[in-house]
Amino acid sequence: MAEKNYADKYSMYDLIAKKRDGGRLEQAELAFWLRSMLDGSVPDYQTAAMLMAIFWRGLDEAETFALTEEIVASGEQLDLRGLAGVTADKHSTGGVGDKTTLIAMPLAAACGLKIAKMSGRSLGKTGGTADKLASVPGFRLDLPEAELLQQVAEVGLAVVAQNKNLTPADKRLYALRDLTATVDSLPLIAASVMSKKIAAGAQVIVLDVKYGSGAFMPDVASAIKLAQLMVKLGQSCGRRVTAVLSSMSTPLGAAVGNALEVAEAAEILRQPECAPVSAELRRLCVVLAGEMLYLGGLAVSRADGWRQAEAALQEGRGWRKLLQFLQAQGGDTAALEAGSLAQAEYVLPIEAAQSGYLAAADAAQVAEIVQFLGAGRERVEDEIDYQVGVRFQKPAGAWVDQGETLLEIYASSLLRAEAAERELRSILRIVAEPPQLEPLIWGLVDERGAARPWAELTAEQ
Amino acid sequence: MAEKNYADKYSMYDLIAKKRDGGRLEQAELAFWLRSMLDGSVPDYQTAAMLMAIFWRGLDEAETFALTEEIVASGEQLDLRGLAGVTADKHSTGGVGDKTTLIAMPLAAACGLKIAKMSGRSLGKTGGTADKLASVPGFRLDLPEAELLQQVAEVGLAVVAQNKNLTPADKRLYALRDLTATVDSLPLIAASVMSKKIAAGAQVIVLDVKYGSGAFMPDVASAIKLAQLMVKLGQSCGRRVTAVLSSMSTPLGAAVGNALEVAEAAEILRQPECAPVSAELRRLCVVLAGEMLYLGGLAVSRADGWRQAEAALQEGRGWRKLLQFLQAQGGDTAALEAGSLAQAEYVLPIEAAQSGYLAAADAAQVAEIVQFLGAGRERVEDEIDYQVGVRFQKPAGAWVDQGETLLEIYASSLLRAEAAERELRSILRIVAEPPQLEPLIWGLVDERGAARPWAELTAEQ
Repeated sequence: MAEKNYADKYSMYDLIAKKRDGGRLEQAELAFWLRSMLDGSVPDYQTAAMLMAIFWRGLDEAETFALTEEIVASGEQLDLRGLAGVTADKHSTGGVGDKTTLIAMPLAAACGLKIAKMSGRSLGKTGGTADKLASVPGFRLDLPEAELLQQVAEVGLAVVAQNKNLTPADKRLYALRDLTATVDSLPLIAASVMSKKIAAGAQVIVLDVKYGSGAFMPDVASAIKLAQLMVKLGQSCGRRVTAVLSSMSTPLGAAVGNALEVAEAAEILRQPECAPVSAELRRLCVVLAGEMLYLGGLAVSRADGWRQAEAALQEGRGWRKLLQFLQAQGGDTAALEAGSLAQAEYVLPIEAAQSGYLAAADAAQVAEIVQFLGAGRERVEDEIDYQVGVRFQKPAGAWVDQGETLLEIYASSLLRAEAAERELRSILRIVAEPPQLEPLIWGLVDERGAARPWAELTAEQ
Repeated sequence: MAEKNYADKYSMYDLIAKKRDGGRLEQAELAFWLRSMLDGSVPDYQTAAMLMAIFWRGLDEAETFALTEEIVASGEQLDLRGLAGVTADKHSTGGVGDKTTLIAMPLAAACGLKIAKMSGRSLGKTGGTADKLASVPGFRLDLPEAELLQQVAEVGLAVVAQNKNLTPADKRLYALRDLTATVDSLPLIAASVMSKKIAAGAQVIVLDVKYGSGAFMPDVASAIKLAQLMVKLGQSCGRRVTAVLSSMSTPLGAAVGNALEVAEAAEILRQPECAPVSAELRRLCVVLAGEMLYLGGLAVSRADGWRQAEAALQEGRGWRKLLQFLQAQGGDTAALEAGSLAQAEYVLPIEAAQSGYLAAADAAQVAEIVQFLGAGRERVEDEIDYQVGVRFQKPAGAWVDQGETLLEIYASSLLRAEAAERELRSILRIVAEPPQLEPLIWGLVDERGAARPWAELTAEQ
């Protein structure tokens, strides 16, 4: 009966017209919309019209906050309050070769944070964290909630596929946005990301907001705006939130492809000295883990956070935490420990056609090629080939001699390997002068919402 | 196979994104959208997002023209080329008490034009032309095409419910616009109206574009813009088109309600001298009929067109044409001729509470009350009560003595009659000074698209 009165009080037509004319939507109006969308009384075409009106007119901070709250309220939430210690989470806005979760999370857990991470199946071109982990034989993503909580209490880290009915309104909205060209709206992106993080229950949330050809946000300025909005939203919901801003114009680290990325993460955690091609990625992971420790109150300063994370890496505690976590969820880590997790039918090296400096490869173009090899999915039901991908041997900007291997293609057929080779040859450029490279980390948006470049941060510590 | 390639060539997502970003849609892209919408391969939520993007970004003239053509191409067309003489049509953008078709069309037909009019069931508050005609006993709206053409050839006039599959894309678009707050878009209104008129086949089209509280367009300026766009669209499709601009801030003529309006039309055509309450309406009908004659080349000037229409009225030729047309379609005109067509269970007079001048009643408010009485429909399946409505005895601005009847309510129950009475008493105002009245006819948008006030037109003739 309460529901009925609710539906009588508002008209979706009137709400669309209000937003169309630039009006503000009240929290109760947003709640009516989302509930009616989920129960089917508001048809998808009205939601689509509303999404385009929001894309056009925007949402102010109060509306975005209300929308976030109502998306959270549309489903269940993960309750982490029974865990001893500080609960933390990390979210990347997505990129090519982004295996930071597999590195930063074991480091943070090794330093004492409690991390229960929900990870969805990705619709990206190159697989999400859940897909990457699924390349470890036996690894179970479907832990029941009690097991998840027990593992976090004991190991400090668990990563599961979303099994609770978290944020169903976000799922429906996102599916429609994805089909109606209304994805690229700052308030809608912020509400979508933050509602999922809020529902997942952690006290501390560190965002990794990416910009560049392989990311949602085209440039630093727009990434800062998105980060500031998300930090505010999270804090309005009582969470401690900051955002690291990092470039996604070229793939992150050496590997792109599921098993290849897990193998790269393992290598970074396993050996104190890092291959040059993975060095920048390693630094980003230490920064992310350190930021989580600082925000969670386990480090007295950012620099202290970075030092703790670096020490965990150097001392092999991160590597052991990764193994412990994988094994706790049923993963067979023998191949990973033997360095043989990534094994494709066809491994095709690409050599430098001439000597010179390797220019940075475009992230979006590399992602297309790796998707073509079979590492990502276009539809939820698509099967992923965990073994395929590419692995750079040289970092962008490095000097290479003619004939030296630039990267290896991991493919399931010679035909695909050769097609990928042709594409890669056309995008890998060797230049005579050392190329100007963009730094990976721009800086961060701190807990007060201030955008702070890296140089300022390091000088202060 | 051609269809298949077509579908392969375009992506609805890309077209939405293009319009969202302010781009121009090509004719082939609009054709793809409409065809895919009708065959179901583009879901309604994508069309809804596109409609909101168009509401926001607009359509330029070339896009609007292309959209109109593609809506026409989406269905059948009425082929009037076999008729001897000049074919003409008239379209009103809709208003309260608008029975101009029932008066102007018999006058124009009596002067030699050939008129085959398609009329849909109205979703307005007070019934459309088809509903008004359905109040005549026996009148058949469902003539087959051959009978329709034969009647137009013999009588000069036929009005039928749309029985061919004309402009199916417009029906679907309109249904979605009506539910997604995207009706009030100038290019979408113009394409919707003109596609229906083009598909209905007449060479000459006179538009009656209304503005004010009872119309789509709020003021003269927006009505002129809409009229200019529609005149251009029609001419691009090879038709002769002009638009009369008339006010719809107060009901048109004396009667609002289906049988009441047919009765008023009959009275105007029947007697050369007209009741003051119908005088302005009569003048508008003579202007519309005269404009059709002038545009159709049957009059040498506008003034000649008006004179011919006025003569047809004075000489009773319009009245005889109305009877001939109604009888040809099976209508029993006995009650109409006896002045007893409109007969309600309860006829409740409202008298003036004091002496003074009667202020103009608001068209939208009167429409609400007449809808409440049962004269209109909210849903396509709603039943209409043909006998209910209101009938003013005095025109706006007239002096009335205390106790004189201002109007009569025609109702099917005393309860409704009394409720309508209360509402009407609250909106009928008697004032001490003669009220400033807006002239009914502002002027017209001529065949060259020029907006010409009435005074200029009459001075020129």
